[in-house]
Amino acid sequence: MDLSDYRFSAEPYYRPVGHEIALYEHAYAHRLPLILKGPTGCGKTRFVEYMAWRLGKPLITLACNEDMTAADLVGRFLLDADGTHWHDGPLTVAARRGAICYLDEVVEARQDTTVVIHPLTDSRRKLPLDRKGEVVTAHPDFQLVVSYNPGYQSSAKSLKPSTRQRFAALEFDYPDATAEAEIVAHEARIEPALAATLVDIARHSRALRARGLDEGVSTRMLVYAGVLIRDGLPAAESCHMAMTSAITDDPDLRQALQDIVDACLG
Amino acid sequence: MDLSDYRFSAEPYYRPVGHEIALYEHAYAHRLPLILKGPTGCGKTRFVEYMAWRLGKPLITLACNEDMTAADLVGRFLLDADGTHWHDGPLTVAARRGAICYLDEVVEARQDTTVVIHPLTDSRRKLPLDRKGEVVTAHPDFQLVVSYNPGYQSSAKSLKPSTRQRFAALEFDYPDATAEAEIVAHEARIEPALAATLVDIARHSRALRARGLDEGVSTRMLVYAGVLIRDGLPAAESCHMAMTSAITDDPDLRQALQDIVDACLG
Amino acid sequence: MDLSDYRFSAEPYYRPVGHEIALYEHAYAHRLPLILKGPTGCGKTRFVEYMAWRLGKPLITLACNEDMTAADLVGRFLLDADGTHWHDGPLTVAARRGAICYLDEVVEARQDTTVVIHPLTDSRRKLPLDRKGEVVTAHPDFQLVVSYNPGYQSSAKSLKPSTRQRFAALEFDYPDATAEAEIVAHEARIEPALAATLVDIARHSRALRARGLDEGVSTRMLVYAGVLIRDGLPAAESCHMAMTSAITDDPDLRQALQDIVDACLG
Amino acid sequence: MDLSDYRFSAEPYYRPVGHEIALYEHAYAHRLPLILKGPTGCGKTRFVEYMAWRLGKPLITLACNEDMTAADLVGRFLLDADGTHWHDGPLTVAARRGAICYLDEVVEARQDTTVVIHPLTDSRRKLPLDRKGEVVTAHPDFQLVVSYNPGYQSSAKSLKPSTRQRFAALEFDYPDATAEAEIVAHEARIEPALAATLVDIARHSRALRARGLDEGVSTRMLVYAGVLIRDGLPAAESCHMAMTSAITDDPDLRQALQDIVDACLG
Amino acid sequence: MDLSDYRFSAEPYYRPVGHEIALYEHAYAHRLPLILKGPTGCGKTRFVEYMAWRLGKPLITLACNEDMTAADLVGRFLLDADGTHWHDGPLTVAARRGAICYLDEVVEARQDTTVVIHPLTDSRRKLPLDRKGEVVTAHPDFQLVVSYNPGYQSSAKSLKPSTRQRFAALEFDYPDATAEAEIVAHEARIEPALAATLVDIARHSRALRARGLDEGVSTRMLVYAGVLIRDGLPAAESCHMAMTSAITDDPDLRQALQDIVDACLG
Amino acid sequence: MDLSDYRFSAEPYYRPVGHEIALYEHAYAHRLPLILKGPTGCGKTRFVEYMAWRLGKPLITLACNEDMTAADLVGRFLLDADGTHWHDGPLTVAARRGAICYLDEVVEARQDTTVVIHPLTDSRRKLPLDRKGEVVTAHPDFQLVVSYNPGYQSSAKSLKPSTRQRFAALEFDYPDATAEAEIVAHEARIEPALAATLVDIARHSRALRARGLDEGVSTRMLVYAGVLIRDGLPAAESCHMAMTSAITDDPDLRQALQDIVDACLG
Repeated sequence: MDLSDYRFSAEPYYRPVGHEIALYEHAYAHRLPLILKGPTGCGKTRFVEYMAWRLGKPLITLACNEDMTAADLVGRFLLDADGTHWHDGPLTVAARRGAICYLDEVVEARQDTTVVIHPLTDSRRKLPLDRKGEVVTAHPDFQLVVSYNPGYQSSAKSLKPSTRQRFAALEFDYPDATAEAEIVAHEARIEPALAATLVDIARHSRALRARGLDEGVSTRMLVYAGVLIRDGLPAAESCHMAMTSAITDDPDLRQALQDIVDACLG
Repeated sequence: MDLSDYRFSAEPYYRPVGHEIALYEHAYAHRLPLILKGPTGCGKTRFVEYMAWRLGKPLITLACNEDMTAADLVGRFLLDADGTHWHDGPLTVAARRGAICYLDEVVEARQDTTVVIHPLTDSRRKLPLDRKGEVVTAHPDFQLVVSYNPGYQSSAKSLKPSTRQRFAALEFDYPDATAEAEIVAHEARIEPALAATLVDIARHSRALRARGLDEGVSTRMLVYAGVLIRDGLPAAESCHMAMTSAITDDPDLRQALQDIVDACLG
Repeated sequence: MDLSDYRFSAEPYYRPVGHEIALYEHAYAHRLPLILKGPTGCGKTRFVEYMAWRLGKPLITLACNEDMTAADLVGRFLLDADGTHWHDGPLTVAARRGAICYLDEVVEARQDTTVVIHPLTDSRRKLPLDRKGEVVTAHPDFQLVVSYNPGYQSSAKSLKPSTRQRFAALEFDYPDATAEAEIVAHEARIEPALAATLVDIARHSRALRARGLDEGVSTRMLVYAGVLIRDGLPAAESCHMAMTSAITDDPDLRQALQDIVDACLG
Repeated sequence: MDLSDYRFSAEPYYRPVGHEIALYEHAYAHRLPLILKGPTGCGKTRFVEYMAWRLGKPLITLACNEDMTAADLVGRFLLDADGTHWHDGPLTVAARRGAICYLDEVVEARQDTTVVIHPLTDSRRKLPLDRKGEVVTAHPDFQLVVSYNPGYQSSAKSLKPSTRQRFAALEFDYPDATAEAEIVAHEARIEPALAATLVDIARHSRALRARGLDEGVSTRMLVYAGVLIRDGLPAAESCHMAMTSAITDDPDLRQALQDIVDACLG
Repeated sequence: MDLSDYRFSAEPYYRPVGHEIALYEHAYAHRLPLILKGPTGCGKTRFVEYMAWRLGKPLITLACNEDMTAADLVGRFLLDADGTHWHDGPLTVAARRGAICYLDEVVEARQDTTVVIHPLTDSRRKLPLDRKGEVVTAHPDFQLVVSYNPGYQSSAKSLKPSTRQRFAALEFDYPDATAEAEIVAHEARIEPALAATLVDIARHSRALRARGLDEGVSTRMLVYAGVLIRDGLPAAESCHMAMTSAITDDPDLRQALQDIVDACLG
Repeated sequence: MDLSDYRFSAEPYYRPVGHEIALYEHAYAHRLPLILKGPTGCGKTRFVEYMAWRLGKPLITLACNEDMTAADLVGRFLLDADGTHWHDGPLTVAARRGAICYLDEVVEARQDTTVVIHPLTDSRRKLPLDRKGEVVTAHPDFQLVVSYNPGYQSSAKSLKPSTRQRFAALEFDYPDATAEAEIVAHEARIEPALAATLVDIARHSRALRARGLDEGVSTRMLVYAGVLIRDGLPAAESCHMAMTSAITDDPDLRQALQDIVDACLG
């Protein structure tokens, strides 16, 4: 596996919202395993990409899901013309060669899969490859980072206490209005005033979570709307296509969102 | 894989019902991932075929189902005489070579399978092939389009908020009476007056959804009925065979449909 | 695969009960996908065999079941001395080479399996072999026919609306008394009077469905009874062995059936 | 596969309890598929062995269970040095080469597995090997026989109506006291008087089924007890070891059985 | 497979508690299949080892569990350089070569797995290897023995009536106080008086089963405690480590056990 | 497999909290199987590592999980260029070559998987490799150690009585305040006073278990906080990142923890 695929040649755009960069650097200095907590689309993935770039380390990202097995993380035997040979999984590659390994939406993985990270996240920093009969000692640069959204997960999907205890944690939320407008303006390449209007819509929409909306409008959706407006599509239509229509199938919630859009666009 | 199988040599027949063609072009210009929402048989698949033809791009279509695994989308190792070698799945082919990838009835796939599209649908536009140890950067022409019917899906079958947030959306419904009659006349090669009568039946049948019918008579069924009538089968028998008998097993609903047919055929 | 195994050299015995032969020919003329609906043992399978013979087409029949996967229909890679090679499944053989493909008891298959027939049953008439990376365009002779019994299936086992919408339908029931007696006399090679008596038993038994009998005595059971009587076994014993004892384990229903037999045999 | 393993060189001991031998011969003359119904240990398996010997046909027996797949019946591809080749399953062997195929406790198999027998049990007498692309026409000697115990099965485990309709049925029960004593005396090689006493115990025990005993003492258990007594073990201890202790773990039922034993042994 | 691994070169220590040795010999003389019933740790496994040594037969033991498949018992095809070849499972080895096959905790196996023993446990004494197409006739020395603990199993885990009916049964319980003390003194090499005290603790602990303790202190635990005391650890600490702490996590039950220990050790 | 990977070259830091070292040595002298019981993060794993170092034995550790099969413990056949050959699992390696085998969080494994350890944990000390047809006699140095946390496991996840009975047990809890402060000061390399303050926070937090906190702050978390403080991060922020934020998503519990931190840091 060529790790250069996993290095960032250009600086990923990231606008800090607090001193999370310093906190991450403290954690990385001691290679503390780290949990990033926060709502969908608030920038956790972008942050870890930025930190990997800043620290000059490769980043191996895995989107966790219920079908992911321990072998998907650790590796397995594959068959070729000379018989079976071992194929390191992404976690093993990261541990062996010193990448940051980022398990996105870790609570989607079965608890049983996640126990394979335990020996990597205590003082041992080792990864036993039971099927291969090898114990990998983590590279000094290796760090494990996981993320999840504490907002809408069921109790069935959470980290085991014995897993949690192995991590320090950073908390994220949507950026404040000023920061978010700055991000939207930068990413969609639109005027600050328009970005501020879009952010205004998003912030009102997030209040609908109390009325049954799973998630409010994310920063990413605002960027989509901004891009469409810049491209010449009317603002109302752009917001409908990029936000209202995409975010829910519930007629009442859609009307409420539409009303917010209409009010903000004035 | 020879992508020419996935290109349209002839223009697929598509009759626009609004300015959905322009909206799609705006979305494609920025390669925004797109959701097509609407009832069964209203023309979503035909629309995406038309757009692929219009944009001159190959179209790779997948009918999603619960058994579909991430490997079915992304690819897997196959064994041949020289050992195992990697075989790109259809999503990987589309991303690597610049096709439009269309996931039909995406909510039928397990939520866990659909997370593999996440890194392709944010600013990264990358597809990590974890088992192969490669990260595919999407071809500039690549776009992801998904569809579903918001009407009869259970809450167990819906898109995760973290998936939804990655898409803009276009909404479809059955075409209005004039447009639908034009489509039926064109496809079944029948007289406009007969087509209008058949559309009249369909529009009344769709009102039965409130009384328990899963779906009303679709445009496709009208075409079937039209074809049978053109072929010399009596209109009542054609409607029975192509609509009433096919659409439900419930005796009451069938009688109600039969009454609609009789009234419209006069 | 040698399709001659799937052709009928002799005309299968089929006694029409209405103008279902003409209706089928209309549907086949336009290759409309067809649903055959009706109770167990009423002759659906025999009918499609007769039509395949009449139209001079090979018939590939599959008894659907819950374990049937999409690969069982479409095909899979098999390993031989030269490595893996693709093996067309029966649906693919039928589509590629122009057979009628008959999915018996289609509701037994999982809904997720049946979505593979969608692209074959709309205007595309194509079958994408995703794992092989090929799109099969259906042979002009190809037609898809499915059957099920609307009577005793649970709601968990039914066709999805998006599947139903792709089919025209023919409805079957047990033949009327005259026709059924003719069939029994022909197949069991017994006298018309005896056949009429057996049919009388069957028709009374079918009324027990309202009292909990899953299915009434089928035409096939009457033929069994007729054969045993012709062979010299007393009529009461033949009816007991071929009907009463086989059809249910419930003591009350068996007594009711026995009473019907005794009354009819007089 | 060498079918001589499946032929009986010696006559299996079978004591008729009615004219079931003649009924079976009538059914076999027309190759009617046959259900044998009756309680555990009443002699169904022995009967079909006897009939196979009497008719001079090989007998292939399968004990059905929930893990049995269609491939276990029909066959599968196996891999050897020259690649994959097809391996006929026992049902296919029986159909191809003319054995009687006996599916013991057929209701234990999943309903989905049993549908593979449908085309063998109607007028087609064919077995399609879908994965191999071959249709086996049954050998003229082939017959299918299935058995189950209607007494203690749950409703979840029963034959589908569409399966039942394909069979004639023979009903079995424990033999009457005289016949059962004759069997026990013959098989355990004990005196008729002792055999009669043991049968007396069994017949009383079977009345406990109304009080919660799953099954009464079977003929086989009587033979066990008889063998132990003949071997010199005291009668009470033999009955305890071969019957009371084996048949239940419930203290009350065991005491009731013990009381029956004590009373009968006097 | 080298059966000498399965023979006992030295006499296993077994102290009879009744005439179970003679009863077993009667059963073995006729090769009756045998159930050993009794609580955990009361000596069933040791008994069957002793009998195998006494009869001079190899003993093949399998600890049953829910994942055990019929193929684990019977055998399967394995692949080597010359292709697939059949590998006898332990039940097949025992049947073919004349070992005693002991299925420990048989109720842990799925009922569906255990039906494979049926043809070996009636007059046929045959084991059909369906996948191989061979019928193994049991070696004259072969006997099947199974065990389970009737005390704490749920109703979901029990033997099917049709399986039970094939066995004679021997019942075991903890040995009486004298015998148990003798065993503990022998195995832990401690003084009879200390052994008697430990047995006293065990007997009181077993009364706690009525108060929620799953199982009382077993003979094996007494041996552990005896060994630790002989090794110089104080008696109270030895009993805590070998009994109280190991047997339960419930604070109340532990206190009750502790009180018993304190009282007995005086 | 090279066992040197599994030996400790340096003494693992372990601070005894009682005479658990002597108790372990007594158990090891007789190779008694051992359960280590206690809360998450209290030092069970470190203790067994220390004992393995002290006894000069290799230690093979397995983190148990629900997907772990018996084959993962015992071994399996793997395919290479010369066909299949057997690959010992870690339990087999430990038994064959004389390591201590440590099954961490054993209750996470299915009860059915854990029965494979039974023959290794009674007087036999043997491990039957059923699929290979070999019985491994344990090396004289082999010992089995398992651990679990009795505090938060559900009743569905516990050891079977027949498994428990095979073990002696040692109980662990968090060390007392003095010992814990000593550990934190040593591991985080901070001043004793600061360590004492952090321990004070932990001890208060553990009282929140009665109010719904799954686990209190562990010693490991205190070390994390200490490391961050030593690195220059303010104490409050360090405690938030290493404890409060990581340990729970519940707002009320987090506030309660925050209050404890504020009070202790004064």
